[in-house]
Amino acid sequence: MIRYLTAGESHGPKITGIVEGVPAGLELSEDDIALHLARRQKGYGRGGRMAFEKDRAEISSGVRFGKTTGAPIAMQMPNRAYEKDDAGWPKVMNKEGDGADVDPITVPRPGHADLIGIQKYRYNDIRPSIERSSARETAIRVACCFPARKLLKHFGIEIGGHVIRIGSSGYEKPWEDVRNLVDPMLKDGAETVFKAADESPVRCLDEELTQKMRDEIIVRRKEGSSLGGHYEVVVTGLPAGLGSFVHWDRKLEGQLAQVIMGTQAMKGVEIGLGFEAGRRHGQEVHDEITYEDGNYRRGSNRLGGLEGGVTTGMPLIIRGVMKPIPTMLTPIKTVDIETKEEKDTRYERSDVCALPRAVVVIENVIAPVLANAFLDKFGGDSIEEIEERYQAR
Amino acid sequence: MIRYLTAGESHGPKITGIVEGVPAGLELSEDDIALHLARRQKGYGRGGRMAFEKDRAEISSGVRFGKTTGAPIAMQMPNRAYEKDDAGWPKVMNKEGDGADVDPITVPRPGHADLIGIQKYRYNDIRPSIERSSARETAIRVACCFPARKLLKHFGIEIGGHVIRIGSSGYEKPWEDVRNLVDPMLKDGAETVFKAADESPVRCLDEELTQKMRDEIIVRRKEGSSLGGHYEVVVTGLPAGLGSFVHWDRKLEGQLAQVIMGTQAMKGVEIGLGFEAGRRHGQEVHDEITYEDGNYRRGSNRLGGLEGGVTTGMPLIIRGVMKPIPTMLTPIKTVDIETKEEKDTRYERSDVCALPRAVVVIENVIAPVLANAFLDKFGGDSIEEIEERYQAR
Amino acid sequence: MIRYLTAGESHGPKITGIVEGVPAGLELSEDDIALHLARRQKGYGRGGRMAFEKDRAEISSGVRFGKTTGAPIAMQMPNRAYEKDDAGWPKVMNKEGDGADVDPITVPRPGHADLIGIQKYRYNDIRPSIERSSARETAIRVACCFPARKLLKHFGIEIGGHVIRIGSSGYEKPWEDVRNLVDPMLKDGAETVFKAADESPVRCLDEELTQKMRDEIIVRRKEGSSLGGHYEVVVTGLPAGLGSFVHWDRKLEGQLAQVIMGTQAMKGVEIGLGFEAGRRHGQEVHDEITYEDGNYRRGSNRLGGLEGGVTTGMPLIIRGVMKPIPTMLTPIKTVDIETKEEKDTRYERSDVCALPRAVVVIENVIAPVLANAFLDKFGGDSIEEIEERYQAR
Amino acid sequence: MIRYLTAGESHGPKITGIVEGVPAGLELSEDDIALHLARRQKGYGRGGRMAFEKDRAEISSGVRFGKTTGAPIAMQMPNRAYEKDDAGWPKVMNKEGDGADVDPITVPRPGHADLIGIQKYRYNDIRPSIERSSARETAIRVACCFPARKLLKHFGIEIGGHVIRIGSSGYEKPWEDVRNLVDPMLKDGAETVFKAADESPVRCLDEELTQKMRDEIIVRRKEGSSLGGHYEVVVTGLPAGLGSFVHWDRKLEGQLAQVIMGTQAMKGVEIGLGFEAGRRHGQEVHDEITYEDGNYRRGSNRLGGLEGGVTTGMPLIIRGVMKPIPTMLTPIKTVDIETKEEKDTRYERSDVCALPRAVVVIENVIAPVLANAFLDKFGGDSIEEIEERYQAR
Repeated sequence: MIRYLTAGESHGPKITGIVEGVPAGLELSEDDIALHLARRQKGYGRGGRMAFEKDRAEISSGVRFGKTTGAPIAMQMPNRAYEKDDAGWPKVMNKEGDGADVDPITVPRPGHADLIGIQKYRYNDIRPSIERSSARETAIRVACCFPARKLLKHFGIEIGGHVIRIGSSGYEKPWEDVRNLVDPMLKDGAETVFKAADESPVRCLDEELTQKMRDEIIVRRKEGSSLGGHYEVVVTGLPAGLGSFVHWDRKLEGQLAQVIMGTQAMKGVEIGLGFEAGRRHGQEVHDEITYEDGNYRRGSNRLGGLEGGVTTGMPLIIRGVMKPIPTMLTPIKTVDIETKEEKDTRYERSDVCALPRAVVVIENVIAPVLANAFLDKFGGDSIEEIEERYQAR
Repeated sequence: MIRYLTAGESHGPKITGIVEGVPAGLELSEDDIALHLARRQKGYGRGGRMAFEKDRAEISSGVRFGKTTGAPIAMQMPNRAYEKDDAGWPKVMNKEGDGADVDPITVPRPGHADLIGIQKYRYNDIRPSIERSSARETAIRVACCFPARKLLKHFGIEIGGHVIRIGSSGYEKPWEDVRNLVDPMLKDGAETVFKAADESPVRCLDEELTQKMRDEIIVRRKEGSSLGGHYEVVVTGLPAGLGSFVHWDRKLEGQLAQVIMGTQAMKGVEIGLGFEAGRRHGQEVHDEITYEDGNYRRGSNRLGGLEGGVTTGMPLIIRGVMKPIPTMLTPIKTVDIETKEEKDTRYERSDVCALPRAVVVIENVIAPVLANAFLDKFGGDSIEEIEERYQAR
Repeated sequence: MIRYLTAGESHGPKITGIVEGVPAGLELSEDDIALHLARRQKGYGRGGRMAFEKDRAEISSGVRFGKTTGAPIAMQMPNRAYEKDDAGWPKVMNKEGDGADVDPITVPRPGHADLIGIQKYRYNDIRPSIERSSARETAIRVACCFPARKLLKHFGIEIGGHVIRIGSSGYEKPWEDVRNLVDPMLKDGAETVFKAADESPVRCLDEELTQKMRDEIIVRRKEGSSLGGHYEVVVTGLPAGLGSFVHWDRKLEGQLAQVIMGTQAMKGVEIGLGFEAGRRHGQEVHDEITYEDGNYRRGSNRLGGLEGGVTTGMPLIIRGVMKPIPTMLTPIKTVDIETKEEKDTRYERSDVCALPRAVVVIENVIAPVLANAFLDKFGGDSIEEIEERYQAR
Repeated sequence: MIRYLTAGESHGPKITGIVEGVPAGLELSEDDIALHLARRQKGYGRGGRMAFEKDRAEISSGVRFGKTTGAPIAMQMPNRAYEKDDAGWPKVMNKEGDGADVDPITVPRPGHADLIGIQKYRYNDIRPSIERSSARETAIRVACCFPARKLLKHFGIEIGGHVIRIGSSGYEKPWEDVRNLVDPMLKDGAETVFKAADESPVRCLDEELTQKMRDEIIVRRKEGSSLGGHYEVVVTGLPAGLGSFVHWDRKLEGQLAQVIMGTQAMKGVEIGLGFEAGRRHGQEVHDEITYEDGNYRRGSNRLGGLEGGVTTGMPLIIRGVMKPIPTMLTPIKTVDIETKEEKDTRYERSDVCALPRAVVVIENVIAPVLANAFLDKFGGDSIEEIEERYQAR
């Protein structure tokens, strides 16, 4: 079973991750990972803040001569800003000393973990809440999940995501329009989807909609507000029979929902038709079963590739929502935790819309869930061993 | 940590559950549980099929003189139909013998686990898929989760659910309309919500909408189709600071999403505004922080009681979607797994809409997640011990 | 992954277990399990107490037509004494009522969980401690672990245990004497060991030693004392490569040690030479590696079948110690929890030596650990699927 | 719940660990950790090999101004030898390239993970087995477990270990002699034990025995053999009621046994009298219960501080065995994995006896188990919060 832990603060010296349980013999390089880290950094709607960083996860164990060894893989991403910029991070984030010369932050920003961090951990400074709940952590999460994604890819399982709505700009008929656009692309694997989406500054497959989204971001930036939106992630090549219906915690719907909703700023998730399935009646929802060339197929794929928590062999279709970024130029009312006085939120440099980049995070966080279901089915400790079985199916 | 396993088939002799980790000294009776089992059984849209059963979970361990002992609690729900009816279940579900006199089921119903069970477990009869993936299992899940719900109740934390949409019948402005209706009720605790909803045959708080939903069910029943819909579950009384943002798998959003999406027929989940948050800009989403009478509050509660995966002290608001029941009078195309010939699905007696009853299941399955977050915060092995701390906060 | 929960009190209406994660298609019957339950009940050194019970675990789910379905398996063992005997258990163990007519037990027996149960769970009656910590629970544990044992057996992996010491009666040279006796038997699989041991009333393979152990039990019974001892469990047929050295919690030594030390009355565990390895120097401990007929072997097997936490393909050799039964005719000093006065322990009918029966428990509790390591290696959801791979190795 | 992952190879660039679940507000510094890392490095019986390293774990997250923040703590220990020495480790351990210029190791050393690594992971070079199974990993494990140890210390719970046997040199009556020596020291807390033991080059509390052990090491070094031995670890200050008897996997005996047996080279573990309990009869084993000054005590502590898997409030006494180091100057027979020819093991510089240092590792690995049982009992997210409750007991 692949499992991982991440550590690190947004402005600390580095973020770190350890992934355990990756089979031996998987080709893995820092360049591979860097590709997705770069994708995660690109997207319209960013502020200027992190423009100077170019993320790279340094592997310090578990890989030798370009292949995994089966041992835990440690990765680190040094924070270049920590030393270089003039914000004094080594002093602010000092692991030693008493912090007497560092002013505590006492005005919590609504929508962030600022206030609940204080309440839960009894901090007298909001800084540690800000640092650990920051989306910066998703960079190392992308890196930690990548070996699982690579494993899936080795067996022809591809993942690709794209943006379907930003604020008021979205497909008119979100299910039909997107299916018509995306399903033909899936014959060549879901990576065609992310590659096409990457051509759009907002990761939207539709050119006109891309323009609308960009315009909406410009408007909201001027207003000092922010935006979130909806995305879709598709997975192709999954064999039928991964996951299980025999116990609730083995259902893939649930496991996928947890990793997605466990990602910063996500407030909803759906599989296939999702919420739309509640608006329709049964004949408009369930998928006919057919048999072609020795394989069962579904006439449509409105249930999104899962029945009873188990893969059907059809593409997996997941959608989710990211809330607008809470940090905004136009302030919201809040309270100083020391004086209990009403305050306006202080502006910090921030992005206007993080969704185009968040899609890359979601593509990656679902990979360990699927890889673990795959390993449950096929077992094995090395790619070579798994491959023998996979071929012999 | 509260954990549980369930076992049992829809038409087997009984369904069984074991719950481990419940503190000692919690008042618990079969009558308590039976109340929610009865609620789970009631709701417009049912077929005639299970009308004769009146569920009761028999406790056979872990409770003495009306209180939990801290030991695992075993519960069983005998299937009265197993012996009594004339369908021959003891023969069909025989744990012994070779089954030579039982005809296998070979025509999988789309939307159920029928086909994937065959593919995953190599059954040559669809029966075991049908039996274990059945919604019958949710009865014992309600029972297993009830001790956690009772624990929460002891500390003033209440859960209540209601239906907000069935097919095309739903609130016009799902967020505002429901907030206006529900929020005033929450001052008296979320149980007021379920009690009011229980007055409606479709568990809808709005009388006019109840009528519309009922009419829609009648229409779809006549057509031989089925319906699903949307529900909302609200939790009041949660102290701020449960859950954590420091690691993704400790975020309550994710844990809640897993238990909900791990429930039969659920295809989506959202917290607070959910998908609506993707359609709005930031100023319309984030909640002002205020301070009143020694407590932090949020001016609105559009994030639904969680920030950064941690409770804010505001009511928790969860919504989800249940797909329409796959078993329908009007057949769907499918394939015989033996002959590979195209077939129509065979009709089996079934409900038209299970949503009003499913709401009760969701109310219960979230309870262990919240109780575990509560126990993480307050620790302790007995209600007495936990109470001392809770009072001393 | 196979996992299980048990529930039930020694004098409650029944004990219950649920096992989740057993692959489909495994032949399983109540008779199979009853064999090991009967073995667990037989052994010299018993008191008269439970002579009337003949244990049988009733399966109520997860098995159809003699084979597992992949769904959770629930098992129950009704307590015949509960209704029949005159001790009034239904009243004493009543799940309802206030217990006003039941006298609390207030004198804790040293060596049992009596006192710590009071301290941990704030009971005012020792009864619940007695009931749940009782060795009665090991009966359902044997049943719950049996499917894993059967799975292993299907793939030629056999488990057999025997007693090597009771009190002062044991092999003179515990390692050499036992190896000389047991190793030749292992060519026919480890089940030959338990079958031969079952011929001895104390489950000892040596006839003379059997007589000595029996005599020692007689002497200690007369004195009103009790006895424990040492046992050995051997596993044959394990392929090399189960478990892993890459992370501490994946080492089989640790996982095996936990399940054994998690069993009532066990105070120590060792693999291979165990503690003797600390008395020797390196040349007397490590096993030469040889290569014969296409397989690596070890010249000796002093490390007991594991190197670095991973199976070597040699027999697994585990030893453990069970402490003497704490309930003894000759009293020990203790304290009344109400009055805090010094008291003598009250005698309750009890066995003098439980070790011969405990060996059967240990044989079974290790099975899920080994089966899970096996499933990690070979994967798969049905015996048929696993077998294809196992044959193709 | 405190959990951790470690990564890193013996001769790679660094070893890394991440610890998650440590409460906020715990004082923690690199110097604190370095003390135990230095203790782990010191001990008679070492080879010259690692003399130049002085271990220090660099904390890169989760600590600010000398206190934990509740966020995961990442630690790294760079391998100074990696860059400096002339063995060419950067080439041998290269994460990139094809390794064409690095000769594979093909002669497995008995007693190490060398051969099983090949069998499990299908390596064609033994190097990755050597690197990850090396005792070097225990350095980062000591660091990862230290925050738990510090937490315990904050609440007066102290851990101390010492050596009781090396080869043939050990206490004559291992239980009585050691109890007479150690028990009087425990009034001042178990740290007095490790501090006294640290005065001995072999960490033995007895001066004469220290001399004997040292002599035995000298003899075996000359012979080209190696030694292991027995140790004891004692924990004082544990409140009664940690752990539980209600389910087997919650028993502390089992959890402690896993972490200990999950440590390199450990082949046995026992609690209290341990295996000696099997040689005695009941009256010589069980501990009288007494009541003094408002506390229950045991007249003796032969069960070692645990009854039914739960702490009794008496000192916890754990013993274990470490096997002799497998790498020896005098070769053992083995087989070349390429040619399948018989070979002698190649000598590598190595220690003769690692036990004095391993004691420090065991002291640390048990800390998370005890800290988690403590947190289960007392709950809470910050030291301040836990302390309020602990004082209010």
